[in-house]
Amino acid sequence: MSKKIESAIKPTREENYPEWYQEVIKAAELAEASPVRGCMVIRPWGWGIWENVQAKLDKMFKDTGHQNAYFPLFIPMSFLEKEASHVQGFAKECAVVTHHRLEAGPDGKLRPAPSSLLEEPLIVRPTSETIIGETYSKWVQSYRDLPILINQWANVVRWEMRPRLFLRTAEFLWQEGHTVHATAEEAMEETMKMLGVYTDFARNTLAIPVIPGEKTAGERFPGAVSTFTIEGMMQDRKALQMGTSHFLGQNFAKASNIKFQDKDGKMLHAWTTSWGVSTRLIGGVIMAHSDDDGLVLPPRVAPKQVMVVPIFREESEKASVFEYCDKLVKEINDVNFADGKVRADVDKRDMRGGDKNWQHIKKGVPIRLEVGPRDMANDSVFMARRDKPHRDKVAVPREQFLKTVTTILDEIQLGLYERALARREAATVEINDAKTFEAFFTPNNPGNPEIHGGLALSHWAEDPKLEAKLAELKVTIRCIPSEGPEEQGKCLFSGKPSTKRAIFAKAY
Amino acid sequence: MSKKIESAIKPTREENYPEWYQEVIKAAELAEASPVRGCMVIRPWGWGIWENVQAKLDKMFKDTGHQNAYFPLFIPMSFLEKEASHVQGFAKECAVVTHHRLEAGPDGKLRPAPSSLLEEPLIVRPTSETIIGETYSKWVQSYRDLPILINQWANVVRWEMRPRLFLRTAEFLWQEGHTVHATAEEAMEETMKMLGVYTDFARNTLAIPVIPGEKTAGERFPGAVSTFTIEGMMQDRKALQMGTSHFLGQNFAKASNIKFQDKDGKMLHAWTTSWGVSTRLIGGVIMAHSDDDGLVLPPRVAPKQVMVVPIFREESEKASVFEYCDKLVKEINDVNFADGKVRADVDKRDMRGGDKNWQHIKKGVPIRLEVGPRDMANDSVFMARRDKPHRDKVAVPREQFLKTVTTILDEIQLGLYERALARREAATVEINDAKTFEAFFTPNNPGNPEIHGGLALSHWAEDPKLEAKLAELKVTIRCIPSEGPEEQGKCLFSGKPSTKRAIFAKAY
Repeated sequence: MSKKIESAIKPTREENYPEWYQEVIKAAELAEASPVRGCMVIRPWGWGIWENVQAKLDKMFKDTGHQNAYFPLFIPMSFLEKEASHVQGFAKECAVVTHHRLEAGPDGKLRPAPSSLLEEPLIVRPTSETIIGETYSKWVQSYRDLPILINQWANVVRWEMRPRLFLRTAEFLWQEGHTVHATAEEAMEETMKMLGVYTDFARNTLAIPVIPGEKTAGERFPGAVSTFTIEGMMQDRKALQMGTSHFLGQNFAKASNIKFQDKDGKMLHAWTTSWGVSTRLIGGVIMAHSDDDGLVLPPRVAPKQVMVVPIFREESEKASVFEYCDKLVKEINDVNFADGKVRADVDKRDMRGGDKNWQHIKKGVPIRLEVGPRDMANDSVFMARRDKPHRDKVAVPREQFLKTVTTILDEIQLGLYERALARREAATVEINDAKTFEAFFTPNNPGNPEIHGGLALSHWAEDPKLEAKLAELKVTIRCIPSEGPEEQGKCLFSGKPSTKRAIFAKAY
Repeated sequence: MSKKIESAIKPTREENYPEWYQEVIKAAELAEASPVRGCMVIRPWGWGIWENVQAKLDKMFKDTGHQNAYFPLFIPMSFLEKEASHVQGFAKECAVVTHHRLEAGPDGKLRPAPSSLLEEPLIVRPTSETIIGETYSKWVQSYRDLPILINQWANVVRWEMRPRLFLRTAEFLWQEGHTVHATAEEAMEETMKMLGVYTDFARNTLAIPVIPGEKTAGERFPGAVSTFTIEGMMQDRKALQMGTSHFLGQNFAKASNIKFQDKDGKMLHAWTTSWGVSTRLIGGVIMAHSDDDGLVLPPRVAPKQVMVVPIFREESEKASVFEYCDKLVKEINDVNFADGKVRADVDKRDMRGGDKNWQHIKKGVPIRLEVGPRDMANDSVFMARRDKPHRDKVAVPREQFLKTVTTILDEIQLGLYERALARREAATVEINDAKTFEAFFTPNNPGNPEIHGGLALSHWAEDPKLEAKLAELKVTIRCIPSEGPEEQGKCLFSGKPSTKRAIFAKAY
């Protein structure tokens, strides 16, 4: 390997991508493992990103006619059995509550009180279709009660044997939309509308050029008629499923008995959808944009977009520098950006300016401003951008900075999107024969087997031959892209006819 | 009983207060029981109130220097044993997770897989001091790491045998602040600061004239050195604890080993606090303000503050009335109020105007506007206020309404506060002898035994005699009011000397 410029994160992406990911999270103080296996602690900087994700998505949900509500954390075990495919998919690794009291045992230590054994165990929700469906069946009587357009922000639990911060944790936070409609057409329209919301959000807020598309039968949500997804590509060229929208047909309406009387007095089963994104999105943001100096954040989700670092040598200069910085932050915080104001702060901690600067680099703050007595004398700020090399600093008159800060933030936002899109395009290949396909997904770099492949656009058909080959290569069909053209072709492995290419990739 | 004017809620407050409470919740579509015992479904209108509570409190927490983070849902059982008093208080009625997998049993039905039995059971958090303390012990090394000022918005579970919507549910939603400080003084200052935030919030946002004060030893949070509370009085003259702020001393720092090196290099245990409010606040809002026509909401927490009801007789009028209403709502939504804009909406549902009106009355919408062709011709609206009789409607020119809407909302907000304060003052009595005290708390209305008593301000001292009498009367000491004067006196039951009156009441 060639000699490298010193980087703040070791190992680098090239050296060891999975470890680089962990180190970025640690250096940015985003999250950490907790004493409870598989559960994470989301630290304030990581939570700040989630707050921005929530605020923007929540607004988009409300703008498309949805309301929020809240349903129970627990699901009676029998509810999971109501929908045949659903039980296969979710009644597996989950947290099972069996007792409702602790008591001191014979050894004086706490134990679950045997007398408090529940008649029916409760499952900590892995997803809420069944418990929400039960409630909806009471709410829906007539066509006048439809549509129901509800979302909930909640924590869910799916036991994980190999947890990975943000990407795969036992407990994670998400939103789950659950809607009920009178017709299949309306339910499908809703499914696609929310896929559109997710696509828009991922592209314009997270700066990730996701590909919307439909999942194949084998990758569907358990119980869904069709599942749609947005797929992002990370810097190791693996795909990340970043959100799903499910057309559930009448499967859950039948399982939960959601029926309504139509205008003609007939009783019909309703049509339902569900859709969700989770804290996994933060993992996507980290992996799509960050570099070997740490986290790189799209301004629209950065908890702080501008960080002011006061610089002074003499203790006597401190008060006036702080005062100038406070005033500056106040001015910046008054500038409109996106749905609110620019988020700026000043770092007054008692530590070296250089150390502070490196912390903010590693935390991915989009714009850093150094302000010392000399800058004050010129009424200017010394500006660095996270999307440029860290030594690349320019003096900008204060007034000019205030006038251009939103343009700079937009530039950074768009630049990150374009950089990610260029990476994705460079790693996307149309592959038309089995041999090339296999080579594409076979590690050929012994020093760094993790990074290889990319997105293969190939023809396919449901067939055991295809399935066997994919299992061998550890490749999955990510989706059949909504935006892809119709095209005649043949499945690479079965030779069966195909009318549209699918995206194949290794994935998280 | 005297003859009554017809009311929308049956029974009335006078007739049966507990049932009136349930009916108000049902009629306003705030929440309902779920299929999981003790857990509730919070419906969109109820959730909208909680969103407003969250938004305002979250801003107040951030304005006082706090950040949000997120900690695990589960707590290892052994953690509860770390703090001696805490285990007494919380290791009782809780949800115990013992297995992490389901499987089909011999009968084909699901069961917790015996092979997935956890080595150590996990408790669904009833409160998070122990799990957060464990994490803090890793974060805190030096005095430079202090203070830690963190809050989390989360769900918690305390098994409930007699659940009551919002007031006492097995799962509830809350925020819990957890802070760490270098000195006792700073920790106590934080404790009192957050009590102040809660007091301000309850009074100015919820329009409830709460009394801040300190809990007596018997009512303290398990593990706290001192507990402070805000106590509200409901319309049945019972007290409701609406928020608590705890000075935990070094108890949890010792239990979790939170130590720091001070400026002189000495290792010291830190000082911690915790503070929380929950969805119980919504129960308080319902019981403090609502009337026999249903929910009455303080404008600052109302999901919608203005509801426009289009009125038309001919289908041909519909389009122009809707158009006028849409324009009006847009104008109202553009008026600044509190931290944002006025929240207005138009009810275009296909049902009778009168039925719509009654729904919005029962839902507590502060201002209703009826708009029909005649109003349009005059460019005016027909306005009704929820704090006035429902027939009391006035025509207001549209322009004037837009200019005065915030004044009217403020008037309603303040009016609700003053009405609740007058009720509290009328029900607050200084009591100086045991006989009067007993009579005060003894039901004397056989037809309606629930409503009696109120807040008794009396001298007290810790003594078994007092405790026995309170237990007999089902009365508790709510708090020693922060704002009460120092005064010499004697405990009504033990005769021991006392320097300050406490507030005694029956309570939720």
